[in-house]
Amino acid sequence: MFHSHRVQIYYEDTDFSGVVYHANYLKYFERAREHMLGVEHLVDLYQRDGIGFVVYKAAMTFREGARFGDIIEVRSSVRAESAYRLIFQQDIWRGERRLVEGEVHLACVDRNNKLVALPRLILDVLQSHPFASV
Amino acid sequence: MFHSHRVQIYYEDTDFSGVVYHANYLKYFERAREHMLGVEHLVDLYQRDGIGFVVYKAAMTFREGARFGDIIEVRSSVRAESAYRLIFQQDIWRGERRLVEGEVHLACVDRNNKLVALPRLILDVLQSHPFASV
Amino acid sequence: MFHSHRVQIYYEDTDFSGVVYHANYLKYFERAREHMLGVEHLVDLYQRDGIGFVVYKAAMTFREGARFGDIIEVRSSVRAESAYRLIFQQDIWRGERRLVEGEVHLACVDRNNKLVALPRLILDVLQSHPFASV
Amino acid sequence: MFHSHRVQIYYEDTDFSGVVYHANYLKYFERAREHMLGVEHLVDLYQRDGIGFVVYKAAMTFREGARFGDIIEVRSSVRAESAYRLIFQQDIWRGERRLVEGEVHLACVDRNNKLVALPRLILDVLQSHPFASV
Repeated sequence: MFHSHRVQIYYEDTDFSGVVYHANYLKYFERAREHMLGVEHLVDLYQRDGIGFVVYKAAMTFREGARFGDIIEVRSSVRAESAYRLIFQQDIWRGERRLVEGEVHLACVDRNNKLVALPRLILDVLQSHPFASV
Repeated sequence: MFHSHRVQIYYEDTDFSGVVYHANYLKYFERAREHMLGVEHLVDLYQRDGIGFVVYKAAMTFREGARFGDIIEVRSSVRAESAYRLIFQQDIWRGERRLVEGEVHLACVDRNNKLVALPRLILDVLQSHPFASV
Repeated sequence: MFHSHRVQIYYEDTDFSGVVYHANYLKYFERAREHMLGVEHLVDLYQRDGIGFVVYKAAMTFREGARFGDIIEVRSSVRAESAYRLIFQQDIWRGERRLVEGEVHLACVDRNNKLVALPRLILDVLQSHPFASV
Repeated sequence: MFHSHRVQIYYEDTDFSGVVYHANYLKYFERAREHMLGVEHLVDLYQRDGIGFVVYKAAMTFREGARFGDIIEVRSSVRAESAYRLIFQQDIWRGERRLVEGEVHLACVDRNNKLVALPRLILDVLQSHPFASV
């Protein structure tokens, strides 16, 4: 089971080699995660509680490049590794070909940039989804 | 009459001042233009004929900043100024507030970067739309 | 008299058409402005007084594209249009060719996003430079 | 022994959380690699031989965020893992604090996107540097 998020590849996404600039896949992963966790929840947590998510680790393997005009799909699943860390498996697909494989670890910090436990709100949101093991 | 394209504002779009980094609105304008002209037509023109669109002029007035979590709307209309140039009026709206006003001039170039007339294909596409005067 | 700021063009700056993505020139303009005003002053103003600069207007004309590997130069001058607004003339040059012409209007806002007069500190900094008329 | 490349952090580099957007560190790594390999060599290889470098793997651990106004340093070393692959250790430092650790694997492809051996030119360039084991 995975969460699916589609991304249209525009001029801005490519570099002169003709394919998507490698760092941009991290952006697509992040867009997908925001939708998985709920953009409105992220806004609330930040404004009300001063809590934000930070990326602690990220790893990617690039198999093939996406091109201008492609519509790619970010397929994501997530598990809670501890009370403090979420680990996302996130791959980029174009049709039936997997272009990029990724793993991203998230943690939460408060206004003073101190590590805090994952908020109850987020765990509840994730528990309602089949793509999450929390 | 205008073409409407919605954009979700993600972490990547903002800067530390809390609002969208000003240069990014040019990206949203460009995404909207690609959909107006047809991404598949742009790919075809480039691969088959070596013809690409280039921005010749761009101007923006910034009234208010979009924020993380906002869903903004790019409202665009276009007219052919000559056989060589398209002029797009493109504004950014959030609900009933206009945040940014823009005007972007496009021209076409061939593989040697020489100016060429706007392709028949593009003019035909635009003529079928109420947001275009060509 | 102008302020000169050099920019190396990397992969990240280009798009699949082979030249620099048009929105990126606004980034180079902004980098140059930060050096003109003094990055350390901008940090101080923001942290101590909650004052930040915002772009109010920007206009560019694109004559030729910079390419991967180019080292370009941002040539900037600035004048105070009023107690509230700075107007920067900023052009991109590669050797003796002018690639892009730009004009950018800046204003200052406080923590509540309200317009405030240009800080004394900034006017003093600019008065010491031959590229500024304030 | 490492190669040192300094990066000034501008508005464009940050997001609304106040620190550098995580994907941007991959850009700084790439800028440093271009200088290690020689930008002019990369241009030559691409234009003359149709050979380009692609990122095959990338991994990062984020310990602390860089902020607006920081000048950070990318410290890089590289080894040839085989005739086909270079592995770069690349860390981000601010003064005596290591902010980010990274490892990036590069390979070379020809115009048809087929894997080719690392060019003699690049191996010769690297052999002349103390930060490389090739």
